[in-house]
Amino acid sequence: MTGQERSEEKSECVSLSPMREAVPAPPECERVCVFGTGDLGRSLGLRLLQAGYGVVFGSRRPHRSSSLIPHGAQVLGHAAAAQSAHLIFIAVQREHYDFLVPLANQLKGKLLVDLSNNLRKNQYPEANAEYLQSLVPGAEVVKGFNTLSAWSLQNGPSDANRQVYICGESVEAKQAVMAVATKLGFSALDRGFLSVARELEDFPLQLFPQWRLPLHIATGLSAAFVFYLLIRDIIYAYVTQGKDISFRIIVSLANKVCPIVSLIMLSLCYLPGVLASFLQLYRGTKYRRFPDWLDRWMLCRKQLGLLALGFAFLHVLYTLIIPIRYYVRFKATERTVSVIRENRTTEFDTTAAWRGDSYLSLGILGFSLYVLLGITSLPSVSNVLSWREFSFIQSKLGHLTLLLCTAHTYLYGWNKFLSSSTYKWYTPPGYMLCLVIPSVVLLLKLLLITPCVDRTITRIRQGWERGADQRNPKDSQPLIP
Amino acid sequence: MTGQERSEEKSECVSLSPMREAVPAPPECERVCVFGTGDLGRSLGLRLLQAGYGVVFGSRRPHRSSSLIPHGAQVLGHAAAAQSAHLIFIAVQREHYDFLVPLANQLKGKLLVDLSNNLRKNQYPEANAEYLQSLVPGAEVVKGFNTLSAWSLQNGPSDANRQVYICGESVEAKQAVMAVATKLGFSALDRGFLSVARELEDFPLQLFPQWRLPLHIATGLSAAFVFYLLIRDIIYAYVTQGKDISFRIIVSLANKVCPIVSLIMLSLCYLPGVLASFLQLYRGTKYRRFPDWLDRWMLCRKQLGLLALGFAFLHVLYTLIIPIRYYVRFKATERTVSVIRENRTTEFDTTAAWRGDSYLSLGILGFSLYVLLGITSLPSVSNVLSWREFSFIQSKLGHLTLLLCTAHTYLYGWNKFLSSSTYKWYTPPGYMLCLVIPSVVLLLKLLLITPCVDRTITRIRQGWERGADQRNPKDSQPLIP
Amino acid sequence: MTGQERSEEKSECVSLSPMREAVPAPPECERVCVFGTGDLGRSLGLRLLQAGYGVVFGSRRPHRSSSLIPHGAQVLGHAAAAQSAHLIFIAVQREHYDFLVPLANQLKGKLLVDLSNNLRKNQYPEANAEYLQSLVPGAEVVKGFNTLSAWSLQNGPSDANRQVYICGESVEAKQAVMAVATKLGFSALDRGFLSVARELEDFPLQLFPQWRLPLHIATGLSAAFVFYLLIRDIIYAYVTQGKDISFRIIVSLANKVCPIVSLIMLSLCYLPGVLASFLQLYRGTKYRRFPDWLDRWMLCRKQLGLLALGFAFLHVLYTLIIPIRYYVRFKATERTVSVIRENRTTEFDTTAAWRGDSYLSLGILGFSLYVLLGITSLPSVSNVLSWREFSFIQSKLGHLTLLLCTAHTYLYGWNKFLSSSTYKWYTPPGYMLCLVIPSVVLLLKLLLITPCVDRTITRIRQGWERGADQRNPKDSQPLIP
Repeated sequence: MTGQERSEEKSECVSLSPMREAVPAPPECERVCVFGTGDLGRSLGLRLLQAGYGVVFGSRRPHRSSSLIPHGAQVLGHAAAAQSAHLIFIAVQREHYDFLVPLANQLKGKLLVDLSNNLRKNQYPEANAEYLQSLVPGAEVVKGFNTLSAWSLQNGPSDANRQVYICGESVEAKQAVMAVATKLGFSALDRGFLSVARELEDFPLQLFPQWRLPLHIATGLSAAFVFYLLIRDIIYAYVTQGKDISFRIIVSLANKVCPIVSLIMLSLCYLPGVLASFLQLYRGTKYRRFPDWLDRWMLCRKQLGLLALGFAFLHVLYTLIIPIRYYVRFKATERTVSVIRENRTTEFDTTAAWRGDSYLSLGILGFSLYVLLGITSLPSVSNVLSWREFSFIQSKLGHLTLLLCTAHTYLYGWNKFLSSSTYKWYTPPGYMLCLVIPSVVLLLKLLLITPCVDRTITRIRQGWERGADQRNPKDSQPLIP
Repeated sequence: MTGQERSEEKSECVSLSPMREAVPAPPECERVCVFGTGDLGRSLGLRLLQAGYGVVFGSRRPHRSSSLIPHGAQVLGHAAAAQSAHLIFIAVQREHYDFLVPLANQLKGKLLVDLSNNLRKNQYPEANAEYLQSLVPGAEVVKGFNTLSAWSLQNGPSDANRQVYICGESVEAKQAVMAVATKLGFSALDRGFLSVARELEDFPLQLFPQWRLPLHIATGLSAAFVFYLLIRDIIYAYVTQGKDISFRIIVSLANKVCPIVSLIMLSLCYLPGVLASFLQLYRGTKYRRFPDWLDRWMLCRKQLGLLALGFAFLHVLYTLIIPIRYYVRFKATERTVSVIRENRTTEFDTTAAWRGDSYLSLGILGFSLYVLLGITSLPSVSNVLSWREFSFIQSKLGHLTLLLCTAHTYLYGWNKFLSSSTYKWYTPPGYMLCLVIPSVVLLLKLLLITPCVDRTITRIRQGWERGADQRNPKDSQPLIP
Repeated sequence: MTGQERSEEKSECVSLSPMREAVPAPPECERVCVFGTGDLGRSLGLRLLQAGYGVVFGSRRPHRSSSLIPHGAQVLGHAAAAQSAHLIFIAVQREHYDFLVPLANQLKGKLLVDLSNNLRKNQYPEANAEYLQSLVPGAEVVKGFNTLSAWSLQNGPSDANRQVYICGESVEAKQAVMAVATKLGFSALDRGFLSVARELEDFPLQLFPQWRLPLHIATGLSAAFVFYLLIRDIIYAYVTQGKDISFRIIVSLANKVCPIVSLIMLSLCYLPGVLASFLQLYRGTKYRRFPDWLDRWMLCRKQLGLLALGFAFLHVLYTLIIPIRYYVRFKATERTVSVIRENRTTEFDTTAAWRGDSYLSLGILGFSLYVLLGITSLPSVSNVLSWREFSFIQSKLGHLTLLLCTAHTYLYGWNKFLSSSTYKWYTPPGYMLCLVIPSVVLLLKLLLITPCVDRTITRIRQGWERGADQRNPKDSQPLIP
C-alpha cells in the first residue's frame, strides 16, 4: 500500500515548508483537520492519511492525545488546529459541541463536516448538524459520512458501504466535501439542504423500515393460518378419530401455510393499485392525494411481493421433497400392498391425470414468473429498464402471475368446493380462505381493463380532469402517451 | 417532508425581493421556468418546488391556468416567464413549438430543456430537440428528462427511474441541467451531442428491443417442437394404438420442449462467436466489419443465453415434480403389482444405474453452471469483473456448460440412437434434432482451440493482418497481451 | 473545462469553415493525439472519431501508416502530432518509450495518457506510467483506459466494461481525461495518485484473485472427502461384502461430499470473525492489527460463503432428484415386493416421521436463508443497505443459517452417533467429521453473546482500550452507537 509512504511525505511537507500557508497547497498535500481523537476521529484520520491528506487533530489536551492518533498526523489544540485547515471534521458527540462556541473566530468561514449520530431516533429536538450550525453561524456546516461504520471509515469502502450521503446549504461546501469522499474511495450523493440532516442521522439507526409493515403482515398471516390449520387438521383428527398425526406439523402444515400466505401477500401487492385506480375513477382526477393508508400501502408493494416470493420458494422446496418423506414412502408401499392383498384392480383415471398435471404445470409457470418479477426488482436490473418496460413486467406479468397462482389454487381445490366433507367443523379449508382476496383483485382488475373503463382511467392518468375540459384545452393535452 | 414549507418561503422570496435579479440568487432559491401547464409540466413543477426551486409557469392564459398549477408556483405569460429565469423546461407538445418563435428575443442565451416525447418512432423527420433548436437558434437546447414517467417526475426517483439521460451541444448547459437532475434526486448521464436526441426520444417507446429477436426465436422453436412432438407422441399413439394419452401434453410434452429449446438456444448463443472466428481466420484480419446479420446476432447473445436459462429452469422444475405426478405414481404401483402377480424376479441393472445417475449428474452440473452464467450477467456483477474475468466466465465456462448439457442429452438418448423403433413414422425424436447445432458448435470450437488455429486467431485478435507483416512492424505489435 | 481552449487548435482540421477560429469551435471537433498505430491505437482512434473528436495519429513513418489508420483521422510524425493536440494517448509498448525522450520539448506541459499493460505481473521494477513520467518530466502523465479490452475501446462500453480507472498526480489532468472517458460512454473513477498505476496495470492480468484461496480450500476439502468416502463406502463394501456399488460414486457420493464441504466452508466463513473477537478481548483493544493470516482470511469471507452456497445448491439438486433415480425406484419396488412375499406387516414409526420431516424442514429453512445471504451479497443489493442492515443480515442471519444447517446435519446422524456399526474400519462417517468446526464456531459464538463478554466486546469495538481509561476520557467515548 502506498498510504504509508505518502503519509511520511506529508508530515514532512507540513513541518518543513513554513511558507506553505502563503501559496495554496498542492491538492496532493491538502491539509484537513479532525476534531476529536475518539474512535471515529482516529478511524477517519487514518483513512485520510492513506488517501494522501495531511491530517491535523484538534484536541483539548494535545500532549496527552499524541499517543492515540495515527502515525503521520499532527495533534494541536483546538484553536491552532482550526486555523491550520479549511475543512474540519467534527467527530465529537453532540453533548460536547459547546466547546466550539469560544472558537467562533477561528471557525469563521471554515467548512465543518458533522459526522455525529445519535443513540436513538428523536433524541433531540433538531438535527445535530442544525444545532452545530446554530452554535457556529459563521461557518458552513455540511452533514455527511455519518452513514458509514467506523470500520468503513478506517478501511475504505467495503462491499456494503460505498455510498456517502451529504447535505448542507452551500453548494460549494458540499462539492468540497464530496471531493474528499471521492478521494477516500466513496461515491458521494448530494441529498439537499441541511434540513435533510435529521433524515441522514436517522439512517444508520434504521433496520429495514420499509420491510416492517410487510413483515408484520406476513407474521400475522402465518400465525393465524398455523393456528387455524392446527385446529382443522391435527386437533380435528385427534378429537374425532383419536389419531395422533402431530408429526404432520413439520412439513405438511408448513406446506399449507406457505402457499396460502404467499398467495394472499401477492394479491395484497396488487390490491392497492386497483383501489387507487377506482379512487381516481371516482374522483375524476389524479391530482388529489391518496389517503395516507393507501400511500403507505403502495410504497411497500415491492416488499410485499418479495416476501410473497420467499414464501413461494419455501412452498416449492416443501413440495419437491414430498416423495423423499418417510410418511409418503410408507403410504405408497402400503397402498401397493393393499392392492395386492385385496386383489383389487387399479383403474387409470384420465381426469385425475389432467387435473394433477395442470395443477402442477400452473404452479411451475406461476413460480417461474414470480422469480422473474423478483429478478427485475433487483436494483441493478430495474435501473436499466425503461419505465415502459418496468411497468410491463411489474404490472402485466405481475397480474398474470397472480392469475396463474390463483388458478393453481382453484385446481387444487377442484371438486372439493362442493363436497360437504371438506368443511370439517363447518370451517372451510385454508386454500379456500386464501382465494378470497386474489379473486377480488382479479375481478376488479378485469373491470378496469374493459375498454370503456380503461379509456377513462388512461385519460385521467394523462392529466385529464372531469369537469375541467373547458379550461385551457391545449396545454392539458397529454404529452407522454 | 420539508418540501411543502420550503415552496412557500420560496415563492415569497421571489415576490418580496425585487433586487434579486441583480445579485445572483442563492442556490437555495434558484428560479426555473416551466412552459406548459399540462400533466407533465405540473408534475415537474411540483417536484421542482419540493426540491427547493422557485417555479414560474409560462402559459398562454396565465389567469385561467393559475388554478391548475401546484401551490407555491407562479404563473405568468410566456414572455414574462421566459425573462424571469435562465433555465426553461419546455413541457409542451412538439406541434405547438411554433409559439416559441416570436419569443426569440426573450429566449436569447437561455437554456431550454426539451422534455417532449412522441407517440411512435420516426413520427417526424428530425428529433424534437433538434427542431426546437432550429426554431430558437439563440438559445441552448438540451434534451433530457423525457425518459422519466410523469409519475417519477412528480414523486422523485422510484425503483425503476433513477437515471436521467441528457444530451446537447454545450457542456456548460448540460452541466447546469445535470445539477438540477441531481437535486431532484436523479442521477444524470451525459450521452453526448444533440444528435443523440432522437435516440433518447425513442427510449421511452421501446419495449425490450434487444429481446425481440431472441423471443421470436424462442417462440418459433417452441411452437415447432410442440407441433412435432404432438404428432410423434400423442397423435402417433392414437393412430397406431388407439390410445388417448393427450393428458401428457401438460407435463411430459412441456418437459420435452423446454430442454430442447433451451439447448438449441444455448448453442445459438455460442454459434455466432465461432462463426466470427472462422470469418476472421478466412479474411486474415479483424479490421473488416462482420456482415450485418452476424453483428445483430452477436449483440443478442446475452438475451439468447438468458432465455435458454429460463427454459432450463422450467425443465428442472418439470423434472423434479415427476415423482409427484398421478400418472407416475400410478405406473409405479402398477409395475410393482405386475411383478408380484406375474411372480417375476427383478434384476438390478448396473449399467442402467450408471447411465441414469450420470445423466442426472451431468444435468445438475450443467444447470448449476447455467445459473452461474446467469448471475454473472446481472449488471451489478458483471460491472465488478475485469474483462479477463468476464470473458473467462462467459466463454470458457459457457462452452463447458454447453458441453455438459450436450453430453446430458446424448446420455438421455444412449442406445436408442441405433434402435429402429425410436424412429416412429421415420422421424427422429426431438432430443436427436436438438443435438445437431450443439454438436456442430462444439466441433467447430474444438477446431478453434487446436494449437495451430488458436495461434493464428490470437494473432489476428491482437491486430495482426495477413499480408500486412512487412508494413510498420514495430507499431503493430500487440500491446494488450 | 479545458475543452473550449482546446477546440480552437483543433479546427484547422475543419478545413471548410475558416471563420470558425473567431467563434469558439463546437465541442464536436476537439482534437486529440494518439501515439502508436497498433491495434490498441487504432481501436481507440476509431472510438474517438465516433465520439466526435478530431484524431491525429503520431507515427515514425507517417506515410506508411496512413493506410492503417481509421478513416477520418490524420497521421503525422511524432513531433508534429505532439504539437497538434494537448491530450496525447500513448498506445505504444513500454519497450519503445525511449522514442519519447527526444520529444521532450514538444511534450512539455502536455497531458499524456498511458494505456499500456504488461504481459505478467512485476515484469518491471516500476509501473509503466511512472517510468513514462520519469522519461518526460515536463508532461503530466495520467494512467488510464488500460483496464479496457481493445474490443471495448473500439466498440464502446459493453456489459462488462463500463468502468474506467484513472490515476495521476494532477487533479486537472485527471478531470480532463475523465471528461474524455465520459464522452466515449464510460464512467471514470479517480483512483488516486500515480503510485496506484501499478495496481491498475495489474488489474487486467488478474483472474479472480480474491477467489483463489477459497477455491483452493474448496478443491482441497472436496478431494479429501471424495477420497475418504470412496474408501469408507465403495471400497469397504467391495472388500468386506464383495459388492460392486461403484455406480454410487456419481450421485450418492457427490451428494455426501457437497453438503459436507458446504457446511465446513460456511463455518470457515464465520470462524475468523469469532477468532478476531477473542483476539480483541485478549488484547483489550481494537487498535492493534490482526495477524496477516487472519486479515487475509477475513477478506475472503464473502467468497467462502458464496462457494458454500454453490455446494449447498448442488446438494439440494442432488437430493431432489433422489426419487427419480433408477436405483431408488428399484429399491422401492423391491421393498414392496419383499413385504408381500414375506407376508410382513408394515408398522408406521412416528419417531422416524418426526425425525425425517424435521431433518428436511431444517434443511429447507437453512437453504432459504443461505439464498437470502447470497442475494444480499450482490453488489447492487448490498449497496442500498445501511451498515446496520448489512451486518444484521450477514452476522445475525448468517449465524442462524449456520445453526440451522448444523442442526440439520445432527438430525441426519440422529442415533447413529452411538452405534458402533457406524464406524466402519474405525472411521467416523463424513457428516460427523464435518460437524466439528461448525460446532466449535457455534459454541464460541455462544460464549461471545453472553451478556458479560458481549459488553466488553462492544466497548472495545467502540474504541475503548483496556488500561487506557484514564487517558482522555471525553474524546474516546463512543460516537457511533
